[in-house]
Amino acid sequence: MANSPSGESIIGRFVRIVSAFDDRHTSMSVAELGRRTGLPVTTTYRLVNDLLLERLLEREPGGDIHIGTRMWELVSRGSKMLGLREAALPFMEDVQAVVQHSTTLGILDSDEVLYIERLGSDKTIVDITKIAGRLPVHATSSGLVLLAHSPAAYQDSFLARPLTKFTETTLTDPAVLRRHLAEIRQRGFAAMPGVIVPESSGIAVPVFGPDNTVRAALSVVVPRNEENTAARVPVLMAAARGISRSLGWRGELKGTLRQSH
Amino acid sequence: MANSPSGESIIGRFVRIVSAFDDRHTSMSVAELGRRTGLPVTTTYRLVNDLLLERLLEREPGGDIHIGTRMWELVSRGSKMLGLREAALPFMEDVQAVVQHSTTLGILDSDEVLYIERLGSDKTIVDITKIAGRLPVHATSSGLVLLAHSPAAYQDSFLARPLTKFTETTLTDPAVLRRHLAEIRQRGFAAMPGVIVPESSGIAVPVFGPDNTVRAALSVVVPRNEENTAARVPVLMAAARGISRSLGWRGELKGTLRQSH
Repeated sequence: MANSPSGESIIGRFVRIVSAFDDRHTSMSVAELGRRTGLPVTTTYRLVNDLLLERLLEREPGGDIHIGTRMWELVSRGSKMLGLREAALPFMEDVQAVVQHSTTLGILDSDEVLYIERLGSDKTIVDITKIAGRLPVHATSSGLVLLAHSPAAYQDSFLARPLTKFTETTLTDPAVLRRHLAEIRQRGFAAMPGVIVPESSGIAVPVFGPDNTVRAALSVVVPRNEENTAARVPVLMAAARGISRSLGWRGELKGTLRQSH
Repeated sequence: MANSPSGESIIGRFVRIVSAFDDRHTSMSVAELGRRTGLPVTTTYRLVNDLLLERLLEREPGGDIHIGTRMWELVSRGSKMLGLREAALPFMEDVQAVVQHSTTLGILDSDEVLYIERLGSDKTIVDITKIAGRLPVHATSSGLVLLAHSPAAYQDSFLARPLTKFTETTLTDPAVLRRHLAEIRQRGFAAMPGVIVPESSGIAVPVFGPDNTVRAALSVVVPRNEENTAARVPVLMAAARGISRSLGWRGELKGTLRQSH
């Protein structure tokens, strides 16, 4: 509907505009927006004008524009992400208070881990997770937990592609990864030392939804060689069960969480 | 650009679609979406189709649709709200850990308080704040703090309108409110007992940005008659200064925060 002469829908152009903003580019001039989107100048001005009228974009006193409060509000209020996040947040606060390192909540989206929440601002270690940020599945504890509990067909297709080796310890061999995924299912957690940056380790557990499928991964990021996995896994597992209950999970996972797959 | 025969822009219709979702309606059928938006059936189907193609909406196995992960991600990543929220979150965690009651961060938007963050899930008291939720300015401690530090012309226009009396203690008289706002500026905080629901009280302080204008209000919601204001205001004020520093505030507020206006 309402396609441009180039055949791109208004919605497609809207996506290009919104995608031009990120955490390092939260405001810019309309001219810069045009450059970043690659849209013709007049097209950019007209669409920006429509978006300003609806308050999806806002203009600053200096003339630069940014994503409007209304856009954030509408999307946040209606998104299922808010429910998952709100269910998880009290338990994440507990984990963060006890473990005293970054605590994250990630989901699997478009073959990557998308972090939807992160608590803790420990600047002493290298923690590259950020909210609404993405990291590779095979190089994060959260990603491997999410992959381990995904359907077999998805795992197969994922493992068939070439995987980047970020550090000495990143696993990239499909056969090794497959054994590792089985281990994660059996143990109920992933503990990955320095697989994406050498200085830090991730420990992650799955969060199941009411239908016993995996909804998210709960993880802590700790300095390398201070993993203390034996002490940290139980608090993560208990918190994950709490989040599942908040999401409406009523059934019993078979035996313990670790045998639920 | 690309207006419909009715003259409404595609962007206007997009807003109607997104607005149909909220925390109690996170997924629905396309037919229900049509009813909630008031858009013609064929228009709804076509626009939903464009939105599904761009993954701004997603279809569930049962056929219902919901706001897509990609929409949440794009808007979250590019929004200035994320920066404010990330600056505030560590300090909010500290306040929440010490005060042990709901801690909120609110901004002034379209003559209402919009809560952009909330920590704590204290179910024992009546706390009606929620993330991406709105409450009236004159009936919340956060709202009065934000109004107290707004330009005089905005205060005048706000106080000229009729104000709803929610409880016995809601202030609605413009002259009384004006004195109250002066007091909030002079003291540096607002403490409002039961102004929106009788069972709870709010205590709020302003958070200033690098330009010394108010950016947000930081508040705690506590049970009525357990305000303990003298003990809670200093921790809120210290946290607010920390958030300001994180936002890039380098100057000195004149004397103390309370004399900054």
